[in-house]
Amino acid sequence: MLAEIITIGDEILIGQTVDTNSAWLAENLHLQGVRIGRITSISDTPEAIRTSIDEAFSRVDLVLMTGGLGPTNDDLTKPTLAAYFQTDLVLNEEVLAGIEAFFTKRGKGMLEVNRKQAELPRSAKVLSNSRGTAQGMWLEKEGKVLISMPGIPYEMKGIMEDGGLVAIASQFETTPIIHRTILTQGIGESFLAEQIADWEKSLRDEGLSLAYLPSPGLVKLRISAYAGEKSEAELLARMNHYTSELERRVPEYIFGREKQTMAEVVGHLLKAEGATLSTAESCTGGYIAHLITSNSGSSAYFKGGVVAYANEVKAGFLSVDASDIETYGAVSEKVVIAMAEGARHRFDSTYALATSGIAGPDGGSDTKPVGTVWIAMAGPEKTIAKQFNFGNSRSRNIHISGLTALNMLRAEIIQKRFELSK
Amino acid sequence: MLAEIITIGDEILIGQTVDTNSAWLAENLHLQGVRIGRITSISDTPEAIRTSIDEAFSRVDLVLMTGGLGPTNDDLTKPTLAAYFQTDLVLNEEVLAGIEAFFTKRGKGMLEVNRKQAELPRSAKVLSNSRGTAQGMWLEKEGKVLISMPGIPYEMKGIMEDGGLVAIASQFETTPIIHRTILTQGIGESFLAEQIADWEKSLRDEGLSLAYLPSPGLVKLRISAYAGEKSEAELLARMNHYTSELERRVPEYIFGREKQTMAEVVGHLLKAEGATLSTAESCTGGYIAHLITSNSGSSAYFKGGVVAYANEVKAGFLSVDASDIETYGAVSEKVVIAMAEGARHRFDSTYALATSGIAGPDGGSDTKPVGTVWIAMAGPEKTIAKQFNFGNSRSRNIHISGLTALNMLRAEIIQKRFELSK
Repeated sequence: MLAEIITIGDEILIGQTVDTNSAWLAENLHLQGVRIGRITSISDTPEAIRTSIDEAFSRVDLVLMTGGLGPTNDDLTKPTLAAYFQTDLVLNEEVLAGIEAFFTKRGKGMLEVNRKQAELPRSAKVLSNSRGTAQGMWLEKEGKVLISMPGIPYEMKGIMEDGGLVAIASQFETTPIIHRTILTQGIGESFLAEQIADWEKSLRDEGLSLAYLPSPGLVKLRISAYAGEKSEAELLARMNHYTSELERRVPEYIFGREKQTMAEVVGHLLKAEGATLSTAESCTGGYIAHLITSNSGSSAYFKGGVVAYANEVKAGFLSVDASDIETYGAVSEKVVIAMAEGARHRFDSTYALATSGIAGPDGGSDTKPVGTVWIAMAGPEKTIAKQFNFGNSRSRNIHISGLTALNMLRAEIIQKRFELSK
Repeated sequence: MLAEIITIGDEILIGQTVDTNSAWLAENLHLQGVRIGRITSISDTPEAIRTSIDEAFSRVDLVLMTGGLGPTNDDLTKPTLAAYFQTDLVLNEEVLAGIEAFFTKRGKGMLEVNRKQAELPRSAKVLSNSRGTAQGMWLEKEGKVLISMPGIPYEMKGIMEDGGLVAIASQFETTPIIHRTILTQGIGESFLAEQIADWEKSLRDEGLSLAYLPSPGLVKLRISAYAGEKSEAELLARMNHYTSELERRVPEYIFGREKQTMAEVVGHLLKAEGATLSTAESCTGGYIAHLITSNSGSSAYFKGGVVAYANEVKAGFLSVDASDIETYGAVSEKVVIAMAEGARHRFDSTYALATSGIAGPDGGSDTKPVGTVWIAMAGPEKTIAKQFNFGNSRSRNIHISGLTALNMLRAEIIQKRFELSK
């Protein structure tokens, strides 16, 4: 089953917006067994819209279109689609009520432009948008389907997750792809590949495929296969076998599976232990606390944190000895340990994480070059501190330091469990 | 002058990679006056490559192609291009010497696959790649030009910057596009459009175009025009006129221009004032501190922050009255004001920002539904607190709350300056 994606928007064609919608759609459709044959980004003109749909329909039966439905450019796409699908625009009372409720809930009045968003092509099936006012539309012509959605990623994803993906699965026959994702942290792609070469070979010999998906600080491994010849259950069993074997081989690097995040995994572990966490961040500047509190329910185990940017904050809030900062520098083993232990004590938490480093791009010296980061983990049994260097990019440094700190805590909890079970 | 972009790669079509090359190319070409009429992402098959070039050449004279040139898929794209441009592949000695030097410099031996990378279509002009082993190629046929480049963003950019952009400018006559971007926060796209309708009309009447570019919490306005009839200086003057007029009209919403970020703008203002900032975050969980400290040099004005997740942290670290938390709840005007003033006092900073809210998706009540957020700004003259509701999504709530808090501080500093200048 082949489909195409069309994204509408001059902001894409002048490079002001990176088209992330296509990757999201492609990934989610791919997993459902719908392959994307082509992605086309076009200008928001009736001519470009008509032509690109014609071309796509000459190749495939399903086209997903994003963009061109905001309240300010509403006059363009919908009339073009209505004409293309030989229908007219009519006010959809149900959609109008939904839009009115959307504004009422936010304590705002509805504008005339928003009222016009309830005018939809008569033959369109509505794919409801619970996150905004531009609806998704399912349009059909001679057995071909076009799904039109707004370009705002958050709204587009909601439309697909709330009904779009299911509607596609029920209309078209697809062969789903079965897959398992294994998440690793703390080892680069080529080093990992070298360490697990024989595991990878035996997996491939069985007809399963493996992809390395690196992103800053992480490498995801995805095992996949079409649910064709073998049964789905059989494929899953084989994948689980390989996943477990890998977890035995390199447990220090594997922190989770599928769509888990590092902070989520750490949160689960803390919750299971009835333990709590606090943070004392210098170079990561609140990023670790942000990662943790991005998870709903984190108030159960996260007590709080201090962003200790100024040295007097390290001393005043975390009881770090001012003379140690003077003697060893703020970026030192001594100080990062004092920060972690100070936070653990002040917040009365089971564990504490601390960071101190030179995030860059400026501020390095010969002995402490840009990228030098000290990370400490204080727990009931011990405090550990390690030095790293993740390079010159500030945003990369902050991101990878955050993940590494959380993985240090994860490793400590797992290790303790392992020792208890002996 | 119109061009098109073709990106080759299955990793894009299955959503494993977001195509960032197109946005970079589009932006840089756009500024040079080359408009991108269409971006097409295709599979790495000879058929797809041939067809997409044919289609693009039927519409435009210049096509930029990325991908399909790595050492492992080298057998595919180059022979396809050689055949398309009716030539054959020959070993380019100069390129081979460059590739050998590339490996020597890195202390590695050259592999046979890399030697093959020096085989190029006979008629191709080489666009040199100083960052990798796959060269850029300039190919011509009946007055049409195809530029083929590797898909690794870092290498593609190097090829364009080192010679590609100049080569395009000298071959084609282009009319540069002039544009100005205005950044707004705190008002939705449709409300903004309504408020500035007459401004927009007079701008359009003058032949300038306007685009609304919304993203969560922000709307960017972009004014643009071709430097055709009028001179570049004249156009810029007109755009500056409209930009200034808009800044007079809705100063509370306009926080910056071009590629600035909110945290950067706030940082500049603090620095210019010699003022400092601290944060006391509950529902935003460290995100505001993270936004601020993402800017290099923020240690000059950011003293630090407390992530006060547990109520005892609000009391212990920020001197919030525990009985107020009990009486009014942690999500209340009373408590958020106490948090901001407590932080300002404890960190001894000029300003402090505080947040307390129900980020969701759980935890709401009838009187305080999910999404309820109190934000306070404490300064030397006054403390302001406002209540908001940004909906049900946790990540959106955190993000928009962070931007809103920073914009409250920005508005306060600007307002004070305005009063001082009276």
